[in-house]
Amino acid sequence: MTPAAGPPLPPSPLALTMGEPAGIGGELTLKAWRTAGCPPFVALDDPDRLGRLAETLGLDVPIAVIDDPAEAPGRFTEALPVLPVPLDVPSVPGRTDPANAGAVKESIERAVALTRAGRAAAVVTNPIHKAVLYAAGFTFPGHTEYLADLAGIDTPPVMMLACPGLRVVPVTIHVALSRAVETLTADAIYTAATITAHALGRDFGIAHPRLAVAGLNPHAGEDGAMGTEDRDIVAPAVARLKAVGINAFGPLPADTMFHERARAGYDAAICMYHDQALIPVKTLGFDLGVNITLGLPFVRTSPDHGTALDIAGTGRARPDSLLAALRQAAAMAARRAAAP
Amino acid sequence: MTPAAGPPLPPSPLALTMGEPAGIGGELTLKAWRTAGCPPFVALDDPDRLGRLAETLGLDVPIAVIDDPAEAPGRFTEALPVLPVPLDVPSVPGRTDPANAGAVKESIERAVALTRAGRAAAVVTNPIHKAVLYAAGFTFPGHTEYLADLAGIDTPPVMMLACPGLRVVPVTIHVALSRAVETLTADAIYTAATITAHALGRDFGIAHPRLAVAGLNPHAGEDGAMGTEDRDIVAPAVARLKAVGINAFGPLPADTMFHERARAGYDAAICMYHDQALIPVKTLGFDLGVNITLGLPFVRTSPDHGTALDIAGTGRARPDSLLAALRQAAAMAARRAAAP
Repeated sequence: MTPAAGPPLPPSPLALTMGEPAGIGGELTLKAWRTAGCPPFVALDDPDRLGRLAETLGLDVPIAVIDDPAEAPGRFTEALPVLPVPLDVPSVPGRTDPANAGAVKESIERAVALTRAGRAAAVVTNPIHKAVLYAAGFTFPGHTEYLADLAGIDTPPVMMLACPGLRVVPVTIHVALSRAVETLTADAIYTAATITAHALGRDFGIAHPRLAVAGLNPHAGEDGAMGTEDRDIVAPAVARLKAVGINAFGPLPADTMFHERARAGYDAAICMYHDQALIPVKTLGFDLGVNITLGLPFVRTSPDHGTALDIAGTGRARPDSLLAALRQAAAMAARRAAAP
Repeated sequence: MTPAAGPPLPPSPLALTMGEPAGIGGELTLKAWRTAGCPPFVALDDPDRLGRLAETLGLDVPIAVIDDPAEAPGRFTEALPVLPVPLDVPSVPGRTDPANAGAVKESIERAVALTRAGRAAAVVTNPIHKAVLYAAGFTFPGHTEYLADLAGIDTPPVMMLACPGLRVVPVTIHVALSRAVETLTADAIYTAATITAHALGRDFGIAHPRLAVAGLNPHAGEDGAMGTEDRDIVAPAVARLKAVGINAFGPLPADTMFHERARAGYDAAICMYHDQALIPVKTLGFDLGVNITLGLPFVRTSPDHGTALDIAGTGRARPDSLLAALRQAAAMAARRAAAP
């Protein structure tokens, strides 16, 4: 006899971090909750500051302080669920304070711990202000490296930027352009592309992902006439990818890779440097860009913008990118959970 | 007594070159002529090859052989006016032949001479295949340098790419990315920007053009944290431009310069290298891109694509970019002619 089915277990909520409390993160969190169809999340944040912020901005957002993420999905329709991470000093929009660096870090650490324990579905991070954290002893170049450290992984994670119709992965990221050229290696391209291919299969439901690999130089070097790196570094990486069965092709001239018909031919573009990847994605989808970290043992996304200290507290911040990040994380977590 | 007005003098036609006869140029010329609203042009081409091509492609295009460009506007509605430049050997679509290099060059030289003499309004060039011309003794890196030589100017001309909603000017162009970084100078940025500002005023009717100057490095170097060139090269060039009254601003982070709201803030983007300029313009307007040469003593435009030998003769080539180039040239020539 089949036992009577009980009510379906609520899915785990997304764990949304506080980010820099003087930035626009709190406002985005409130506005995202108010948006129809926002996937359920729990904010790792200071409930008092969120309540005050809602009042200041004239946003009707009831706060539900909870102590177990499992409560979040059930309460999400009536209130914004918050797992308290108290600030040390009250936050003032636009004015960062290193005294709150501990709370900013704690929010991230608890989000990661809950997600790794299966009590949250994915980590979604509000933007942090690195300089403040450095002043408080934070030693990582950024969010992503910190998350990799928390996850205890050795291979650096891979940054993917996505907007409707385009996913890009820069192989080199936050370095001077001259340094990006000098340090580009076939190994780095190969590693970033394999992590990307794996993630597209597991988390995006693309069984046989197609990777378009950009050339470094104009016209992908035009047979060596404009630089040798495409022939000596990029092409061998593509050959290695093909040899292990990954559907990669290139090096392609970067300027003709990103128009609509070209984009239909691949699932992600592997790019050689920061602006080669970010110019097309921000040109096409400035308000809807999502930053996705691949290669972590959990799903992590974030909005594709900074703390915007200059407009914090004014009510002008748009939650589009955070909403896209929440939706992207929910979709990825669902696919990963459903995988065998 | 006011004398009776005679018929208005016909405006000079545009001078359209042959380009590589094995490429798609002939097909584009025929298709452009058939498009309603195409500005009157005279083709510097081989009338027999155009007639044969029209027949092969099933395009109903009567050819009018003329010997004075002044006849072209009057005959343009009924036939495609051609000033004969005979090929040395019959052209075969997709198969280049150095034997025709002389005719390709002659077409360009006559278009320039007619325009400089005021008998044509502007030069519009079909794409050439440089390798064939090199084999026949041509020594210029490309079309633009050849035109500069024909014009007898010392300052290298400036390449502008335009599509609806965006104009970009790369300061360095067809060199390896490492070389673009190494050779970038404040002088080169200053010169390209001043030529651009002047052309926007004279040929585009923009009295006080706004120039957005891109940074070289990610985030425009982030105060030197990611490269020093933005501080040491780009910023001083912007300061010099401002000092002479040009409305230039930057260095701006390149990735956030090209979305719709950002583009509304400037009339042209001055970019530091090829792909920084060409990625956004080809992402946004792949089929409507126009290449405009600034700094020549005459107006010159061209479609923003190559000879497409692979599809030559198939009838699949789209004349959108050539039409955009013809329209752009006509508008620029009219403004220049009307200037005091």
